[in-house]
This record gives sequence, structure tokens and C-alpha cells, in this order.
Amino acid sequence: MSRLGYVRHRAPRGAPARRAAGGVAVVVCDHLHRLFSDPYYARFLSASGDVLAELGLPMMVMTVPPADPGTLPALAAGADGVLLIAARKQHPLAITLSTSGIPVRGIGRPPDDVKVPYADVDNRDGARQAAEHLLLGGRRSIGVIAGPPTLPAAQDRLEGFVTTLRQAGMSDVPVAYGDFGLPSGTHAMQWLLRRSPGLDAVFAASDLMAAGALNALARAGRRVPDDVAVIGFDDSPLARRAVPALTTVRQPVEELAMLATRLLLSGTVSVNPILPAELVVRDSA
Amino acid sequence: MSRLGYVRHRAPRGAPARRAAGGVAVVVCDHLHRLFSDPYYARFLSASGDVLAELGLPMMVMTVPPADPGTLPALAAGADGVLLIAARKQHPLAITLSTSGIPVRGIGRPPDDVKVPYADVDNRDGARQAAEHLLLGGRRSIGVIAGPPTLPAAQDRLEGFVTTLRQAGMSDVPVAYGDFGLPSGTHAMQWLLRRSPGLDAVFAASDLMAAGALNALARAGRRVPDDVAVIGFDDSPLARRAVPALTTVRQPVEELAMLATRLLLSGTVSVNPILPAELVVRDSA
Repeated sequence: MSRLGYVRHRAPRGAPARRAAGGVAVVVCDHLHRLFSDPYYARFLSASGDVLAELGLPMMVMTVPPADPGTLPALAAGADGVLLIAARKQHPLAITLSTSGIPVRGIGRPPDDVKVPYADVDNRDGARQAAEHLLLGGRRSIGVIAGPPTLPAAQDRLEGFVTTLRQAGMSDVPVAYGDFGLPSGTHAMQWLLRRSPGLDAVFAASDLMAAGALNALARAGRRVPDDVAVIGFDDSPLARRAVPALTTVRQPVEELAMLATRLLLSGTVSVNPILPAELVVRDSA
Repeated sequence: MSRLGYVRHRAPRGAPARRAAGGVAVVVCDHLHRLFSDPYYARFLSASGDVLAELGLPMMVMTVPPADPGTLPALAAGADGVLLIAARKQHPLAITLSTSGIPVRGIGRPPDDVKVPYADVDNRDGARQAAEHLLLGGRRSIGVIAGPPTLPAAQDRLEGFVTTLRQAGMSDVPVAYGDFGLPSGTHAMQWLLRRSPGLDAVFAASDLMAAGALNALARAGRRVPDDVAVIGFDDSPLARRAVPALTTVRQPVEELAMLATRLLLSGTVSVNPILPAELVVRDSA
């Protein structure tokens, strides 16, 4: 590993010495079924795996349900480093990992109580672009389907969106929360329509939730984008396949994965790069 | 773990003592991208993960490309056990794992040179059912799209199928090989059509390859099942969605995953259960 400038972090006092195993553990703080249902993970893991494969390094993946008590690090102890995805506020595992002496790189800004270097996408700015697109399109009754409130990326998207609307004088913005998955988008959209029947636009913090919103709108007889404009987040393969094709905020997931993996392996801990997000306009808004 | 009747295997003489880490490593001997493109893995891992989650045990997943030199076990060394999926003949990692002292349960019969207990589906009998269905339907020029020849499950499906045809007096059975993925099924079907233009049926060793064959047949202007009958293997969600819906051999993947996981955790090494496969007749044959 020395050719990569890799420097092993000093283990905490009293911690047992770990042996070099030559590999990276990707710890996904989400339910196992979401690893296969959300294209974000496949995109991230494939790109990160490619970087590691080029270096001849194995990758292992483990999921930790959000409410897990956090007993996992022992399994990851053989790893040279950990990529930590979707860590939530007060997540015991994330806190344990961050003080374990194992090099960790957060994917997405970690919660304030988890002190690890990270790499992120500019979620606030992506959400700002979505809000401005809707305002410029003349939408005046706008709702949000946000991600889990304990997840910083979800917070950033919500705040970037609502702040932009507020600056435009729009203060009453109904917010429903989902888990980034498709069914939660359907339920959230149904709730928003009951809460604000005159809604003419919705911003969902993931493409899957936006696709769920499309289902709910179709069932309610609302045309997209004529009656209700819909914007997603991710620019996953799903966004292009949706009917109508989703206007969405592109996350450079592959670039994020490659950059974060290289930073983890290089031992660089002083930089927390933020990659730009970009609105991709298609048919739904 | 004692409540499960779990007995730690004795490590080989001279091996360093491993500490209990409380978790299972699933080692998939396939390319990372196939973990997300082949529904078999999502089904298996979800079912196995459910069993482990009920017991409060973490699961980690790692892929080892078929040609990997086999340096992975160090990463898995913290695990209490390993589920080994799709190990091929002369796979160095599989051989290393099988002699590591870590409890291992093969998913699918392992190659002869890998001595581990396993759990399997009756691939031969499933393929026999497919062959008999085609023979009873009056098909007389039948080809096979087989899986990788170094993989026992692929061998068993091929042999079960070809043996049944041979017993019916059909000796010239063209065989094309794929990697279980969709594009390989398209290529294999194109090859079979060039080799045997009068082909009236094909058996593919996976639903993904069968779906690829459907694409190739549509491009070649052949109607399914009128001109060419197609049978897949797996009964994955894809089989129901295909047009026409695929006749296929149902693998009880979830049952296999649950049984194998429980056998691994219980330390039972003397039984190698084989679960029945079952032909599911839909529209393609």
C-alpha cells in the first residue's frame, strides 16, 4: 500500500493491533433489501469496486439497519479502511467506527456527532436548482417529499429547497417524509394531496420517491407536468425510464465513489471535497 | 451462539486463533456488477440476511471475480462462518477457504476439489423436467444455452437436460455457453440459430439468458413459442415480466438461503440437502 501513500492511522490506546488484510469494507447504514432496490447503491459499489479491483484490493459490503445497536466493527476489523454510507444522527455504529482507529471516509456529510472525513455532493445547491426551476415555471403551491430527517443528505436537500422557496416569499411548504424508497414516495404524495389539494409541484429527494409520487398522481387523475410538476433527485437509470421521464438533480455517484475510495486509500484526511449537483430537465417538470 | 448449538470448528494446527465476531460472510464467486444485475443474488442475500437479522447477526458480502487469485480469506477471517456461492473448479479462494478452519457452507454443489458441506437445488432433475416438457410438446430440434462449464450447477443443468434428450434418441444437441447474464443469452441464441437454423426449442440455464434469447429470436423474426419454444431456469421476477412470460424451472432460492444459513450456524456438517426444482409452465414453451 505504500505506493499509494497510504498511512495507517494510529489505533486508540489499548486497542488490539490489527493485521493488514488488504481490502475495504463498505458499510451501508440501510436495510439489506434497499441495497438491491435503490440503484444508488449499485452505482456506488460498482464504481468503488472498479477502483479497488484495479489495485487488486477486495471489497466487502455490509448493511447496518438504521436502528442497529452498532455491533459491526468487529467484522470490519480486518479491513484496511471503511467507506461509511448513509450514517444517521446518533448511529452507534458510526460513532464506534469513527473512534476505532480504522481509516473511515464518510460518503455524504456525516452527522455532527460522527467525526470522520467525508466526500459529498452539493445537495443544498442541487435542491436550490430544483426550486428555482419550479419557481421559473410559474409553480406556486409546492410540496416536498423529503428523505429521513436523521440523514444529513436528506436535511441538506430539504433545507436547500425550502430556503430557496422562502427567499421567493413562499413560506407554507408542506413536507412529507419518506425513506428514499418507491412505496414511501407514493404514500407521501397521497398525504400531500390530502393536505394541499391545490398542489402544482413536488420535489422528491430521490428518483425512487419521485417515481412513487408519479404513481400516486396517476391514480389521483393528476397529469404530470400539466397539473403537477415532479422533480426527483439522483438521475438514476430509473429517471430516464419513468413516464413521463423525470426532471431530476444529477448526483455524480460514480465520481463520488471513485474520489472517496482513492482518498480513503491515500490516507488523506484533511480534505472533504464536495462535488457539484446539476439539474437535468426532462419531461416531468 | 450456543443456543443455536453452534460448535466452532477446530482451526488447523498452527493457525492463529480467531476471535468471535458474530457474523457471516457471503462470498460470491462472480463479478460485482452481476451482484446487482442477477436477481438470484438479491433473492439469496435478502433471505439469508433475514435469518441472520432475526438472530442479531451481521452479514457481509464480498464478490470474488472467477479469475481472482484468491487472496480474500484474510478479510473474512473475522467471520463466524462463510456461505460460498458459485465456486468454480480450481478456484484458489474456494480451496483456501475450505482448508481455513472457518466453517463454510457451499451454496450449490462445490467443485470436486473444494471439500465443503453444501446445500443445493436439484439442478439435474429441473433440467430433466424442462427436456421432457419440450419432448412432450413435439419439439425435435433442441439447443441449449448452458452456464459456465467450470460451475457445477451449470454442468448439472446441462447434463440433466442432454441426458434426457439422449434417452429419447436425440443425440445432436447444439450447446452454446453463456455467463448466466442477459447479453450472453442473446449472443448464444444468435450462435445457435446460425449453427442450427431449424431449431424449434432452446433451454437456457438462467432466466436472464432466456430473456436474452427472446431478444435474439425477436430480432431474427422467430415467434415464441410458435417457431421456437424457450425455457429458462430460476423463476426470477423477470420470468413473469418477460414477453411472452417465461416457462422456467423454479429454484427455491429463498428456502435454499434460509436452510443453508441455519445449517452453517448450527455447525451441522454431515448433511448436504438437495431441494426440489419444479417446472413452471407459462407462455414461452
